[in-house]
Amino acid sequence: MPAIPSHSGAARARSWWGWGYTDAHPGDAECTAMGALLPGARARPLPIPRVTDLSIGRPAATPPPALAHLVTAAPEARAAHAMGKAYRDVVRALRGRPGRIPDLVARPTDNQQVADLLDWAGEHGVAVIPFGGGSSVVGGVEYRGDTHRAVMSLDLTSMNRVLEVDTASRSARIQAGALGPVLEDQLRPRGLTLRHFPQSFEFSTLGGWLATRAGGHYATGHTRIDDFVQSLRVVTPAGTGTSWRLPASGAGPSPDRLFLGSEGALGVITEAWMRLQERPRYKASASVAFADFHHALDAVRAIARSDLAPANCRLLDPGEALLSGASHDGSAVLVLGFESATTRVDGRLTDALDLARAHGGRGKAPTPGRDAPADAAVSAWRSTFLRMPYLRDGLARMGAVVETFETAATWDRIPALVDAVRGEVGAAALKATGHPATVNCRLTHVYPDGAAPYFTVAVAGRPGVEVEIWDDIKAAASDVLHRHRATITHHHAVGRDHRPGYDLQRPEPFALALRAAKNALDPHRILNPGVLID
Amino acid sequence: MPAIPSHSGAARARSWWGWGYTDAHPGDAECTAMGALLPGARARPLPIPRVTDLSIGRPAATPPPALAHLVTAAPEARAAHAMGKAYRDVVRALRGRPGRIPDLVARPTDNQQVADLLDWAGEHGVAVIPFGGGSSVVGGVEYRGDTHRAVMSLDLTSMNRVLEVDTASRSARIQAGALGPVLEDQLRPRGLTLRHFPQSFEFSTLGGWLATRAGGHYATGHTRIDDFVQSLRVVTPAGTGTSWRLPASGAGPSPDRLFLGSEGALGVITEAWMRLQERPRYKASASVAFADFHHALDAVRAIARSDLAPANCRLLDPGEALLSGASHDGSAVLVLGFESATTRVDGRLTDALDLARAHGGRGKAPTPGRDAPADAAVSAWRSTFLRMPYLRDGLARMGAVVETFETAATWDRIPALVDAVRGEVGAAALKATGHPATVNCRLTHVYPDGAAPYFTVAVAGRPGVEVEIWDDIKAAASDVLHRHRATITHHHAVGRDHRPGYDLQRPEPFALALRAAKNALDPHRILNPGVLID
Repeated sequence: MPAIPSHSGAARARSWWGWGYTDAHPGDAECTAMGALLPGARARPLPIPRVTDLSIGRPAATPPPALAHLVTAAPEARAAHAMGKAYRDVVRALRGRPGRIPDLVARPTDNQQVADLLDWAGEHGVAVIPFGGGSSVVGGVEYRGDTHRAVMSLDLTSMNRVLEVDTASRSARIQAGALGPVLEDQLRPRGLTLRHFPQSFEFSTLGGWLATRAGGHYATGHTRIDDFVQSLRVVTPAGTGTSWRLPASGAGPSPDRLFLGSEGALGVITEAWMRLQERPRYKASASVAFADFHHALDAVRAIARSDLAPANCRLLDPGEALLSGASHDGSAVLVLGFESATTRVDGRLTDALDLARAHGGRGKAPTPGRDAPADAAVSAWRSTFLRMPYLRDGLARMGAVVETFETAATWDRIPALVDAVRGEVGAAALKATGHPATVNCRLTHVYPDGAAPYFTVAVAGRPGVEVEIWDDIKAAASDVLHRHRATITHHHAVGRDHRPGYDLQRPEPFALALRAAKNALDPHRILNPGVLID
Repeated sequence: MPAIPSHSGAARARSWWGWGYTDAHPGDAECTAMGALLPGARARPLPIPRVTDLSIGRPAATPPPALAHLVTAAPEARAAHAMGKAYRDVVRALRGRPGRIPDLVARPTDNQQVADLLDWAGEHGVAVIPFGGGSSVVGGVEYRGDTHRAVMSLDLTSMNRVLEVDTASRSARIQAGALGPVLEDQLRPRGLTLRHFPQSFEFSTLGGWLATRAGGHYATGHTRIDDFVQSLRVVTPAGTGTSWRLPASGAGPSPDRLFLGSEGALGVITEAWMRLQERPRYKASASVAFADFHHALDAVRAIARSDLAPANCRLLDPGEALLSGASHDGSAVLVLGFESATTRVDGRLTDALDLARAHGGRGKAPTPGRDAPADAAVSAWRSTFLRMPYLRDGLARMGAVVETFETAATWDRIPALVDAVRGEVGAAALKATGHPATVNCRLTHVYPDGAAPYFTVAVAGRPGVEVEIWDDIKAAASDVLHRHRATITHHHAVGRDHRPGYDLQRPEPFALALRAAKNALDPHRILNPGVLID
């Protein structure tokens, strides 16, 4: 992976309704051009929505004077905290029907303020939605329902400092509200990095990654943020706790693992000691083309079972490969990357290419050495990867319905699962819209015992009912995942959009335990109501 | 690691009071010889205790006819299930003061029987102690207190089958009561292995490993059983649940991680889908001597931070090295081992030896290649490792007090921690006995951000108060670990002996959540009372 560009000092404007920076949004002409590729799309893009067109009322609760300086009721802030950044959220904004606008946005700067805000909210029946970068694609940061007197978005991004660095143990204490570039900027002068680069890197925070068990830099091995946690500080309505910073512990069930993935429903993660890494000195990458996607799956499985541990091992099906420019001949493409701070990686890449060729892959020459330029397919993929969410919003403006979802399953189920998703979700999209849908697949993370497929569905919608179409597609996806016993999410989290699938998947004794934990830690039920558990 | 000898078909007699097989116990002459090395020890060994000398009363509860065939009240079975195999347990047996003898021993053969036994126990106020191989060294499988009408040991070892093997996903569904050799015998014909080889391998079960988060085969990377779990089946008094078998999932907090380490307090783990591995084809090992233990720590840290991922990376301090015959000149010894099923490992060993030499290590020539004989220090260490618990019991018969405890801490704390344990625990042992104590240390598992030191304390006791001396030593150890923020256990579990340290370490919000989960899953409070939470 290349260095992710840092924007912490930049004054670029963030979009309140769509992905990322407003100056990176595709313009009307680019939107129109994209729409021309999608049968049934609009001829012109929907206009960009304005906050001033929203009906934003007076807040239904007022914080006490001692907390007033932490809280705003400004319409712009409230609109920007009303939803996450799923397609469903974007299209609701485009159609002037955003989710419930929060009454207040709080921006605490320390742990005590978080505790004070929770105390006040608990006393007054105010729902609290913890909010990091707001990049949730699963309805994780909005309020649905009407059982609370008011709603307060708890924006943690003012708590964004690296507080301590322990070079002996190569770890750092970092506040949860630090966006990806903000924390990397502070680690870089020490020669260290967290190396957690989700697609949302610029627009998501450490706390958000932890609360949602975000997928990270590595395609194999420690694929998620969970494994890099040394300790957590969590502020709950029932009190604050900090786990000891330990490289490992067998003292009872892991206290951190209860809060990793708790999505703000059990407490607010305010800081963490995280395991860091040195910046890699050695890199090598290459891509391999496969005429047959199922042979490519076999190759990936062989590599995942080896000791080679690629940092990148991303298999693109022919549609994904075409879209990103990684291939133009109907081939699937496997993008391989190796990195190390300490040892040369050329040999590992060579071994991986041998395994790929043994399964029918046509490998190009590797591009080894330190900071060697990646090959064209690798580069093409990478730029498309970071641009994709912006393009999705452009497609939304053209009346398209776009859904991305991801899962994981054991290898015995992967081939049939991928085929079933293509067939059934494609059929559901056709039925809902009358238009043929594109369903593409890539593997984002791979394991010795299984893999994590990521699907993209795009189809022209019908005006005004895009949300309903999206809901139909989501329901079809959840259904096929459930029947194949593939998880409702590998790294996007549950939020509100995945609750039906999650409830079916979760073992009942764990549901009992989680509900009991929720009642104990959040007795007034103010924390992110509706997420994970009722 | 060599193949661990399998004994599943053997009819060798297990000791009810001491470690392992009776025919492997050191004889009186060997005990006497060991005692001669310990200033202040007895001249002759204490006699081996007999079940017939115990006062074992009538059981205080009788199971209903439908369950009667699963339950025994035979004195031999009850005595063998009264305690684990800590020194504290062994010396209580030697002194004729074992822990509370359970009223009944149940041996269910399927999930429904486990549920039925829990139902009956809940209705009648009978405490249930889940029991695998009974090798707990932390008081994890005994009853203390008097708040239950009766006590039933729930022996899972009749549920010991590998039920399914999925070669496509390289995983297997295994019943929790399978002892190490029993499950490996069933996997071997498929060319697969779980590769979980704790010191207790022959005398502990899959369910015990899972319930205690046991330390496994690997010195680096996935060091504990936790990481090899695909799914768990857990029978609780509130119902049975099975998590989906997944290579990874981000759907809420991990349901499995709540039960991993729950030590029988939340439910009975009855089976698991486990990730397997191929048997290694390539091995290479070597040992490195260091004149200075602290330089050796630096070498280990450098190796732990590299990508080399040794399977074995065990650092013995001079006392440990002397005891095991790995060195005789006061050197510390680092035992390194690499293994792979797919790729040659000679290069990784060479790189690791280079790192060790850069920190002052004097490396011997590596012994590479497939199944190459390990070098003498490696072999010496290995045989001592498996024999050690038997020797401990021999020392106990000579009136010695022996305690082993282990921990983990970040690297910044490791040097001072090791020095403090040596000094303070040694002083506590001297104060309690009037005899000089031996305190040895080794690192068993290492991480980029820290390490897991394992300590052995041996000292001549005072007749009849060995338990009290051991308690003093344990308290001193817990105290120094607490002050250095080193975990009360890295892989031995909490049980009852570590409760004071655990209670100080556990964050309060997690304690609230765990207590709530316990109340929800075990409303009659019958499951392993006193473990983890009250």
